[in-house]
Amino acid sequence: MKILLINGPNLNLLGIREKSIYGEISFESYFHTLQIKFPDIKMEYFQSNVEGELINKIHEWGFDYDGIIINAGAYTHTSIAIRDAISGVKSPAVEVHISNILTRESFRHESLIGPVCIGSIMGFGLDSYRLGIEAITEYIKR
Amino acid sequence: MKILLINGPNLNLLGIREKSIYGEISFESYFHTLQIKFPDIKMEYFQSNVEGELINKIHEWGFDYDGIIINAGAYTHTSIAIRDAISGVKSPAVEVHISNILTRESFRHESLIGPVCIGSIMGFGLDSYRLGIEAITEYIKR
Amino acid sequence: MKILLINGPNLNLLGIREKSIYGEISFESYFHTLQIKFPDIKMEYFQSNVEGELINKIHEWGFDYDGIIINAGAYTHTSIAIRDAISGVKSPAVEVHISNILTRESFRHESLIGPVCIGSIMGFGLDSYRLGIEAITEYIKR
Amino acid sequence: MKILLINGPNLNLLGIREKSIYGEISFESYFHTLQIKFPDIKMEYFQSNVEGELINKIHEWGFDYDGIIINAGAYTHTSIAIRDAISGVKSPAVEVHISNILTRESFRHESLIGPVCIGSIMGFGLDSYRLGIEAITEYIKR
Amino acid sequence: MKILLINGPNLNLLGIREKSIYGEISFESYFHTLQIKFPDIKMEYFQSNVEGELINKIHEWGFDYDGIIINAGAYTHTSIAIRDAISGVKSPAVEVHISNILTRESFRHESLIGPVCIGSIMGFGLDSYRLGIEAITEYIKR
Amino acid sequence: MKILLINGPNLNLLGIREKSIYGEISFESYFHTLQIKFPDIKMEYFQSNVEGELINKIHEWGFDYDGIIINAGAYTHTSIAIRDAISGVKSPAVEVHISNILTRESFRHESLIGPVCIGSIMGFGLDSYRLGIEAITEYIKR
Amino acid sequence: MKILLINGPNLNLLGIREKSIYGEISFESYFHTLQIKFPDIKMEYFQSNVEGELINKIHEWGFDYDGIIINAGAYTHTSIAIRDAISGVKSPAVEVHISNILTRESFRHESLIGPVCIGSIMGFGLDSYRLGIEAITEYIKR
Amino acid sequence: MKILLINGPNLNLLGIREKSIYGEISFESYFHTLQIKFPDIKMEYFQSNVEGELINKIHEWGFDYDGIIINAGAYTHTSIAIRDAISGVKSPAVEVHISNILTRESFRHESLIGPVCIGSIMGFGLDSYRLGIEAITEYIKR
Amino acid sequence: MKILLINGPNLNLLGIREKSIYGEISFESYFHTLQIKFPDIKMEYFQSNVEGELINKIHEWGFDYDGIIINAGAYTHTSIAIRDAISGVKSPAVEVHISNILTRESFRHESLIGPVCIGSIMGFGLDSYRLGIEAITEYIKR
Amino acid sequence: MKILLINGPNLNLLGIREKSIYGEISFESYFHTLQIKFPDIKMEYFQSNVEGELINKIHEWGFDYDGIIINAGAYTHTSIAIRDAISGVKSPAVEVHISNILTRESFRHESLIGPVCIGSIMGFGLDSYRLGIEAITEYIKR
Amino acid sequence: MKILLINGPNLNLLGIREKSIYGEISFESYFHTLQIKFPDIKMEYFQSNVEGELINKIHEWGFDYDGIIINAGAYTHTSIAIRDAISGVKSPAVEVHISNILTRESFRHESLIGPVCIGSIMGFGLDSYRLGIEAITEYIKR
Amino acid sequence: MKILLINGPNLNLLGIREKSIYGEISFESYFHTLQIKFPDIKMEYFQSNVEGELINKIHEWGFDYDGIIINAGAYTHTSIAIRDAISGVKSPAVEVHISNILTRESFRHESLIGPVCIGSIMGFGLDSYRLGIEAITEYIKR
Repeated sequence: MKILLINGPNLNLLGIREKSIYGEISFESYFHTLQIKFPDIKMEYFQSNVEGELINKIHEWGFDYDGIIINAGAYTHTSIAIRDAISGVKSPAVEVHISNILTRESFRHESLIGPVCIGSIMGFGLDSYRLGIEAITEYIKR
Repeated sequence: MKILLINGPNLNLLGIREKSIYGEISFESYFHTLQIKFPDIKMEYFQSNVEGELINKIHEWGFDYDGIIINAGAYTHTSIAIRDAISGVKSPAVEVHISNILTRESFRHESLIGPVCIGSIMGFGLDSYRLGIEAITEYIKR
Repeated sequence: MKILLINGPNLNLLGIREKSIYGEISFESYFHTLQIKFPDIKMEYFQSNVEGELINKIHEWGFDYDGIIINAGAYTHTSIAIRDAISGVKSPAVEVHISNILTRESFRHESLIGPVCIGSIMGFGLDSYRLGIEAITEYIKR
Repeated sequence: MKILLINGPNLNLLGIREKSIYGEISFESYFHTLQIKFPDIKMEYFQSNVEGELINKIHEWGFDYDGIIINAGAYTHTSIAIRDAISGVKSPAVEVHISNILTRESFRHESLIGPVCIGSIMGFGLDSYRLGIEAITEYIKR
Repeated sequence: MKILLINGPNLNLLGIREKSIYGEISFESYFHTLQIKFPDIKMEYFQSNVEGELINKIHEWGFDYDGIIINAGAYTHTSIAIRDAISGVKSPAVEVHISNILTRESFRHESLIGPVCIGSIMGFGLDSYRLGIEAITEYIKR
Repeated sequence: MKILLINGPNLNLLGIREKSIYGEISFESYFHTLQIKFPDIKMEYFQSNVEGELINKIHEWGFDYDGIIINAGAYTHTSIAIRDAISGVKSPAVEVHISNILTRESFRHESLIGPVCIGSIMGFGLDSYRLGIEAITEYIKR
Repeated sequence: MKILLINGPNLNLLGIREKSIYGEISFESYFHTLQIKFPDIKMEYFQSNVEGELINKIHEWGFDYDGIIINAGAYTHTSIAIRDAISGVKSPAVEVHISNILTRESFRHESLIGPVCIGSIMGFGLDSYRLGIEAITEYIKR
Repeated sequence: MKILLINGPNLNLLGIREKSIYGEISFESYFHTLQIKFPDIKMEYFQSNVEGELINKIHEWGFDYDGIIINAGAYTHTSIAIRDAISGVKSPAVEVHISNILTRESFRHESLIGPVCIGSIMGFGLDSYRLGIEAITEYIKR
Repeated sequence: MKILLINGPNLNLLGIREKSIYGEISFESYFHTLQIKFPDIKMEYFQSNVEGELINKIHEWGFDYDGIIINAGAYTHTSIAIRDAISGVKSPAVEVHISNILTRESFRHESLIGPVCIGSIMGFGLDSYRLGIEAITEYIKR
Repeated sequence: MKILLINGPNLNLLGIREKSIYGEISFESYFHTLQIKFPDIKMEYFQSNVEGELINKIHEWGFDYDGIIINAGAYTHTSIAIRDAISGVKSPAVEVHISNILTRESFRHESLIGPVCIGSIMGFGLDSYRLGIEAITEYIKR
Repeated sequence: MKILLINGPNLNLLGIREKSIYGEISFESYFHTLQIKFPDIKMEYFQSNVEGELINKIHEWGFDYDGIIINAGAYTHTSIAIRDAISGVKSPAVEVHISNILTRESFRHESLIGPVCIGSIMGFGLDSYRLGIEAITEYIKR
Repeated sequence: MKILLINGPNLNLLGIREKSIYGEISFESYFHTLQIKFPDIKMEYFQSNVEGELINKIHEWGFDYDGIIINAGAYTHTSIAIRDAISGVKSPAVEVHISNILTRESFRHESLIGPVCIGSIMGFGLDSYRLGIEAITEYIKR
C-alpha cells in the first residue's frame, strides 16, 4: 500500500511557529515516527508553499498511489484549483488538520477541499495524520 | 478507561433508513464489534431522538467518564443546548459523523457542536466511531 | 388505508389559543369529524410538544401506515431532525398548515419539512387537514 | 358558483414539456375531467405567457367570479404586478403548483403570489387543481 | 410643450381597488383635471398592464415628446427592460408614485426606474402627477 | 400573587458549570433566598432540558399564574415553539438572563423569546431573577 | 400658513462646494426667491451641521408650524434620531433632495427619514424645495 | 452612592410624543418620584439630543459617579462613539429602554451600547429606570 | 439547417440608442449580412419587447428548428419564464450579448437564461451573433 | 497575427480527468488541430498550475502579442492577481471555458477574469477555443 | 505651510482611557512634541465629541489650510456627513488611526472617511500623526 | 538595522502598467532612492508573482531581519497563506499600498494581510514605502 502525505503552506514551520498551538515537533521527525508505526505502508511526504506545486504533485502521484492524506493549510479555504486536482485524480483523499479549524477565525471555518475528500479529521494535533492513515487504510480495504 | 458513545436523532434507524448512504448494519451490532476491538475500554452507548434527553445523559455521565464520542445527528446543526451541555461537563468530547456533511445540503455544513469538541471526524462510515475512540484514547493518554 | 395525523407543538391549544387566527374548535373534536367524513380510512392522531417524541412516532408508524399528514407547528422552521425522520421512513407525507405561513413573521416563511414531503397545503384553516387526506389518498391510488 | 382557472407561462406545454416532471396529459384534457367532476361549478380556463394578459384577465373576471385558482408558473417568483392584481380584485384566490417548488432551484422557493392568496397547494401534480377547487369551494361556503 | 403620462400595471383600477390607499377618483377623470390645469401643455396618457407595451410606447413617443411622467407601478421594482427603454430614448423622464413606497413592503422600497430619471416624486396621492408635470416643465425650461 | 419561574437547558448545572461566568450558587438555593425575599408571592420553580417539557409546563400553568419569569437558556435563540407557547397562554412573561448575551457568541445575540415577553432583563447574574420578579409585580399592579 | 425649511450637514456650502453637482447659488439667496414666490406663506429657514440641533429645532417648531420641508443631507442615511423627531411632532414633513440620491453611492440610496414623511421629492436641483412647498401646501389644504 | 441618569434624543418629548407607547408622564416628574423612592442615592439627570454632549457628560461624571443608567434612545443603534465613551470611563453602566426594542422596527433590534454595559433592562415603561437603579445598586454592593 | 435568432427588449433600438455602446448599425441590416455569410442556413429573426411573445415564439419554433440564438436583453436577468421556455423546447440554445455584461451594473451580472443554454458568448458587439451561429452549427454537427 | 493561448490549473489533465465533462482529447492534440485550422496565425500555447507563472507569461508576451485566449480554470474564480496581469498588459484578452460554468457549483459562477477581457465564451467544449480565436481575430481587424 | 489636526470623539481621553491600548500620553503634550519636530509648519489642533462641530471646523479651515490630518475616532465608521465635509473643502486630508482598526471589532473595519482622503495610516500609536504630517507634506510638495 | 521590502504580483510592472495610477518610475530605481535616503539601514528587496515564493522569502528572512515592509498586491485580498507566513515569523511587518485601496473595486477593500501587521499605510504613491520604513524604524526603536 502506497500513501502520499501532502502538507500545504507554512507547515514547514511546524516546531518553529506558534508552538503553543502546533507543538514543538517538526513534521519531518513526526513523519519518521509514522513510518515506524506503519511499516507495511510505503509513504511519501511532500510539502510546498506554492499552490501550483501541490497540484503538480497530486497529478504526478494521484494515479498510482492508493491514497492521499492532505493538510492543505491556508489553501484549504481558498483553493478551488487544489480541489479540482484532487477530484481529477484516481486516488482517494483524506483531509486532515492539526488544529480544530472551527475554533479559529471565521474565514477558516469553510473547507473547499473537504467536499472532494472521503472524509475529514481535525483537531487532534499531529495525531490527525495517524488517524488519517488509519482511516484511509480501512477505506481502501473495504 | 470509560467512554460514552452518544447518538442523536434518527440514528436508531441505522441499517434500516437510506441504506445507500448509511450501510446495512444496525448500530447495536456495530457497537458490539467496537467492544470486542477495544477490550480495555468500558463503553456505554446511548441514543435518543429527544434533544433534552441527550443533554440529560451528557450531564449524568460527563463528570465521571474519560471521554465522549458524539454523533448529534441533525441536532449538530441546530442545538446550542447540546453544545452548552458538552462545554459544561468535564469529559472531553469528539464529534463524529458517518457521512461527509460537507457534501450534503448546505444547512448541514455548519456544526454547532464541533467548536466545543477536541476535534471532528467525518465521512468514514461507521469507521468514524472507531477512529473517534482511537483519537480520544490518544488524547487522554497525553 | 391507514393514515397517521401528526400535530407538533402548541397545537394542543387549538380552540384555546389565539382564536382569532385558529378558530374555536379543538383538534380532537375536529378529528372526530374527519373520521366520520372518511369512514374507509383508519386514522390515528398524535400530538406532542416534544420534538423527539414526534420523531419516535414517525419511526414507529412510518413503515406500516400508508401515509402521514403532518403539521409540525413551530418545528416546521427549525427541525432538521423531523425532516430526517420523514425521509427515513417509507410512508409518504403531506405537510399541512392551518394558517398561510407566508403572511406571518419572516422566520415562519421557510419550511424544512416541505422538501421531503410530496406536497404542501396551507392557509385553509382546519380544512387543510381534510385536503391533505384527499391529496394523499389520491396520491396512494396512483 | 363560478370559478376562474388561470395558468401562467409555459403551462401550455403541459403534456409536451419535461414529461418526467409534469406528466403526459395536456391541461385542456385535464380541464375537461375537472368539469365533469364538478358539474355544479361554472369554470373558465385561461392561459397566457404574457404577464400583462394574466393581469387583464384577473381584472376582467375578478369582480364577478366567486374564486380564482391560479398557477402563475414562473411569474410566481418574479411578478409583483400579478400579486397586486389579485389583491386588487374581489374574488378570493388559491395558489396551486403542479410540482413541489421547495424541491426545485432556490429561486423557485419564494412565492410573491402566495401571501395575497387564501392559501397554497403544491406538489400533487394536476391533482393540485382539484384540491384547489375543493379548498376554495369550502372557503366560499363558510 | 408635449408631455407623455404613462401608468403601469393595475393603475387602471384606480378608484376601484384599495380605495383607502389610492382614493376614489379614476385616473381618467383626474387626467381631465390635469389637462385643464395645464392648458398650454399637450398631454398624452397611456396605461398598460403589459411590460412590453409600456416599452413600445416609450420607444414610439420618447424621441418626439419633451418629457415623460411615468408611474411604472409594480414594474418599478422588477423591470430592467423599462429602465433600458427610458435611458434609450431622448425625452427626460420623471418617476412618480401615488403612495410613499418606503412605507410599504420591503420589496417595493427599491426602484429600478428611478436612477435613469431626472428625479422622483412620491407619496402625495394623485397630486404626485401634478408635481411631476411642474418639475419636468421647470427642468425643460432650464 | 402566583409567579412561575422557568429555567431552560443546562441551568440545572448552575453552581457546577463554568463557575467563572455563572457563580457558585445552585439555583435551588438561590430560589430559597427569593422565596424569603418575596414572602407574599407564591412561587413555583421548574427546570427542564427538554424543549417540549418547558412548553408543557407553560401550557399547564400559563392560564392560572399571574406571571412567568423565564430564562430559556440556549433555547432562547432557537425555539419558535417556546415563543408560541408563551404567546399562546394568558400569563405575561419576563425574559431574564444571567449573563449579558450581547457580549457572548454572535449566535446568542438574538432572542426569539424576547419579542413575546413584556420585557427583558439580562447581565446581572442571579439578581436578574429578582429584578424580573420586581418588574412583573409592578407590571401586574398597573 | 407657516412652513419650516430645514437643511442638514454641509448644505451651508451650497454655491461653494462641488458646484458641478449642486449649482452656484447659495441657499440663502434661493430662499429669498422662494419667499417672493410664495408671499402668503410664512417661512422659516434653519441649517445646522449638528444632528442634535436639527432635532431641537424640529421639537421647537414642529408643534406650531403647518409643515416641514427637510433635506437632512448625509443624516438622511444614518439618523434614526431625526426620524424619531419628525414622527414625534405634529407637523407633517416632506423630504427633499437636490440630487437624485439613487444615482450616487449605494450607501446614499436608503433614506431613514423618508418613511416618516408624507412623501419625497428628489433630483430637481433647488427646484425640489419649491416642489416640496407646493406638495405640502396642497396636502394641508386637503 | 451617586448615580447618573442619562437620556438620549427625543426623550425630552416624554409625555408629549406618541403617548400610546410612552405614557403621559414627563421624565422630569418621574425623576422626582425616583428621588423620593431612593432617598439615600444622590441622582443627577441629564438629557440631550446632541450625541457629542451625551459623550461630554459621560466623560465629565463617569470617573466620579458610582454608576450610570443610560437610555441612549435612537443613538442606541447608531453610536459607536457613545459606546466608546462608556467603555472609556470608570463607572459601570446599565442600559435601559422604556419599550421592548425587539418588537419595533428591525433597525432598532441591535444595541451598540449594550455590550459595554453590565446588563440591559427593557420593556417595562418608565419602571425600567427604577429597575436599572435597583440593578446597579445591587451590583455596586457586591 | 434552420436557426432562430431572438432579440429581447430594446434591441429594436440598435443603431439608434446609446450608439457609443452598441454601434450604429440596425439589427435588420446586420441580419442581412449574416444571411449572406451563412448561405446554407435558413435563418429566422424575431424581436419583441413583450416577454410573453418571446416565450410564444420559442414554443412555436423550438420544436422544429435546429437551434436558437437568443439575446434576451434585460429579460436575461429577470425572466425565469423565458428560461423555462428554453428548457421546455427541443432546440438547443446559445446565449449571446453584444456588450460584456460583467462590466456593467451589478444587476446585469447574473444571467437566468445562461444555465439552460449550451453556452454563452458576450462582449464582441454584433459579432457575438456570428460567433453564436458558428458555435451552434458546430454543436449540431457533433 | 500572433495569439497566445493560456490554460490554467488542471487543464493539463484534459483527456485524462473527468472525461464525461471534458471529453477525451488532450489539449496538445487539439492545439495541433487549431494550428492547422488557422495557418496564418502564429499561436503559442502555455499551461501551468502555478498562478504566478501564468502571470509571468502574461507579462512576458502580453506586450508583443496581438491577443490572448485565456482559460484560467479554477483561478477564474479566485485570482485578482491574474486579473491585474491581464489589465496591465497591452494585448486584448478573451476568456474561454470548456464547460458552462453557470451550471456547475455556485462558487464557479463568478469570474474575476471576465471583466477585464473583451468578452467571454463558454460551454462549447474545446470548440470554445476556436470561437475565441475567431472572436479576437475579428476584434483585432476592427 | 499650514496643517490642521482634527481629533474626533473620546480622543480627549487619551492618556486617561484604556491606556493599555492608547498609551499614557495626552494628545496635548504629544501635540507640543509635534510642533517642536516640525518647526516650519503652522499647526492647529481641534478636538470635539460633537460630529457637527468637527464639520464646522473642517468648513472653517478647509479652504485656507494646506492639509488636514484627521482621526475621526468612532465617527470614522458612521459619519457620511464628515466624509461630505472633507470632500467639500479644498484642503487634501490624510486619515490616521492610533490603533490598527482591522484587529478590533468588525464594525470598526470599514472607514467612511478613508475614500475621500489621499490615503490612510493606522496602527503606529501616536506616531501615526507624525507619519501623517510627513505624508501630507510630501504630497503637497509634489 | 535590516529591513526586507517585499512586493507581490504585478508590481514588477511599475513604471510600465497603468501609469496614470502608479506613476512612471520602476520600483528598482525607486528602491535606489530609498537606499540613499536611509544609509544606515540594510535593505533587501524581493518581488515575485508567485504566492508561495513570497511565503518562502518571508520564512527565509523573517527570523533574522528587524522588519518587513510588504505590498502584497492582489494577494492582499485573497491570501490567507501569506497572512499565516507573516504571523509565523518573528519580524514585525508593515503593510503598504501605492494607491488608496478604499477607492478601488469593492473586492480590494478588505485586507487579509493587515490584521497581522503592526499597521498599514496606503494611498501616497511610492512615498508609502518611505513612510513604511519610517514607521517601522520608529516602532523598532521603541
